[in-house]
Amino acid sequence: MAQATRAAQAQRSCDPAFPATVSVLLGYQGAAFAGFARQPGQLTVQGQVEQALSVMLRRPVEVVCAGRTDAGVHARGQVVSFDVTQDECERLLSRAAVRSLNALTHDRIAVQRVDRRPAGFSARFDAVEREYRYHVHEGAVPSLFASQVSWHVAGSLDVDAMQEAARCFVGEHDFKSFCKAASAEGKPTCRFVREVSLHRCEVLGEPLLQVRVVGNAFLHSMVRTMVGSLVAVGRGQRAPEWIAEALKAADRRAAGECAPAQGLVFWEVRYA
Amino acid sequence: MAQATRAAQAQRSCDPAFPATVSVLLGYQGAAFAGFARQPGQLTVQGQVEQALSVMLRRPVEVVCAGRTDAGVHARGQVVSFDVTQDECERLLSRAAVRSLNALTHDRIAVQRVDRRPAGFSARFDAVEREYRYHVHEGAVPSLFASQVSWHVAGSLDVDAMQEAARCFVGEHDFKSFCKAASAEGKPTCRFVREVSLHRCEVLGEPLLQVRVVGNAFLHSMVRTMVGSLVAVGRGQRAPEWIAEALKAADRRAAGECAPAQGLVFWEVRYA
Repeated sequence: MAQATRAAQAQRSCDPAFPATVSVLLGYQGAAFAGFARQPGQLTVQGQVEQALSVMLRRPVEVVCAGRTDAGVHARGQVVSFDVTQDECERLLSRAAVRSLNALTHDRIAVQRVDRRPAGFSARFDAVEREYRYHVHEGAVPSLFASQVSWHVAGSLDVDAMQEAARCFVGEHDFKSFCKAASAEGKPTCRFVREVSLHRCEVLGEPLLQVRVVGNAFLHSMVRTMVGSLVAVGRGQRAPEWIAEALKAADRRAAGECAPAQGLVFWEVRYA
Repeated sequence: MAQATRAAQAQRSCDPAFPATVSVLLGYQGAAFAGFARQPGQLTVQGQVEQALSVMLRRPVEVVCAGRTDAGVHARGQVVSFDVTQDECERLLSRAAVRSLNALTHDRIAVQRVDRRPAGFSARFDAVEREYRYHVHEGAVPSLFASQVSWHVAGSLDVDAMQEAARCFVGEHDFKSFCKAASAEGKPTCRFVREVSLHRCEVLGEPLLQVRVVGNAFLHSMVRTMVGSLVAVGRGQRAPEWIAEALKAADRRAAGECAPAQGLVFWEVRYA
């Protein structure tokens, strides 16, 4: 946390030409994009949002996001921030601006609102908590109405065992085993997870198992690897205590598979 | 009701070669099909199910359904029935048969189960109650995760007024005003509606307004015209009492628009 705060200070805006800061709350359907992060020649959420803002403000705009989601991962509460002039700030805070942003972006992006933030606010570094929700559809037959937002697991899962396993994740841990190996090299891999809980929900009468994961920040593929490992426990392939052992190993090979992207929703970001 | 029962008697199976009757419970995503009813050269749910059954039983099979849904309308609890030999009946009641039916039909059809029924059972004529649920998404921005299963209505609706209007539908009424004009000509248009209720639900955090309609049987486009009229009340374009007047008029032009197909789900059928 201390490290993130220091980094935040270093990255605070200091360009006097853009003294105000705004954030945009948006959702998107992951399947339509090659992930959040801008990539040349690819349809990305960041590319779409920056292009729309550049058209509206008639200048190049670069945004900072709360969480860089992978290709196929959905968002309900992604937040991006960027610095603006006083005049731009006022224009962006109108209802018409939200309509324009929706009109100028891909129809699988839904811009919900624009907010004024304290000068120098960063959607990334000022986030104190992030929540992801993952959806699993258990059953012999794939889901009809939730197949694009869930992982179909044939048969039924032992949710009590998963619940017990989930408790092992809570607290401050080194999550190196639960992170894409290549992206962990030489970087800090400790994170604080406040909650991992399982809930039953439904989409048009089709039951889903929802895994809620709340923490300060997440490593690459961390939530999906946590869910993949919990499902291994739910299937009876592993005992609940295996999660604690996998954490201790600090080795990607010690954990379970990475659950498919389409089951994951970046749900919400909380700021101080 | 009496009329339906008489028709049912007349249609009961009397072919001694097929002394047993089975029903299949299935769901489907309406967008994939040109409606339920078989049509030459078109992808239909009935066509798919009959073809799969014909492959499995190595003979032509024709089914009777509980409700012929239009193109784009979804189903969660459609029921079809057909007569079989004792041997066929036993084969169809296995778990493997459900798997085969799913493998042989389009992937937007989900066969849930096969049940043995009393000889001569009809999914259509023995149904005592049918339930439909319609989903409306209110808001400035279209839904991301429920757009294929809801009607997007810009702005917010007066749900209290809709609730009041909904009460006018309950009871035995002539629904001629709430039925596709061409299909009402010369046919009985009285139906019994037991319940029309409004509920709040959500799909992955996106709020939906759900209209539940329960009745003995429904005319062509009846639920969608009821919902289109309720939305006119919710938008403040009409007063709640207008529904009662529209019913009395017995004229399609007296009611509101037909709500789009993708918001409607054929939810459940109840048998005595």
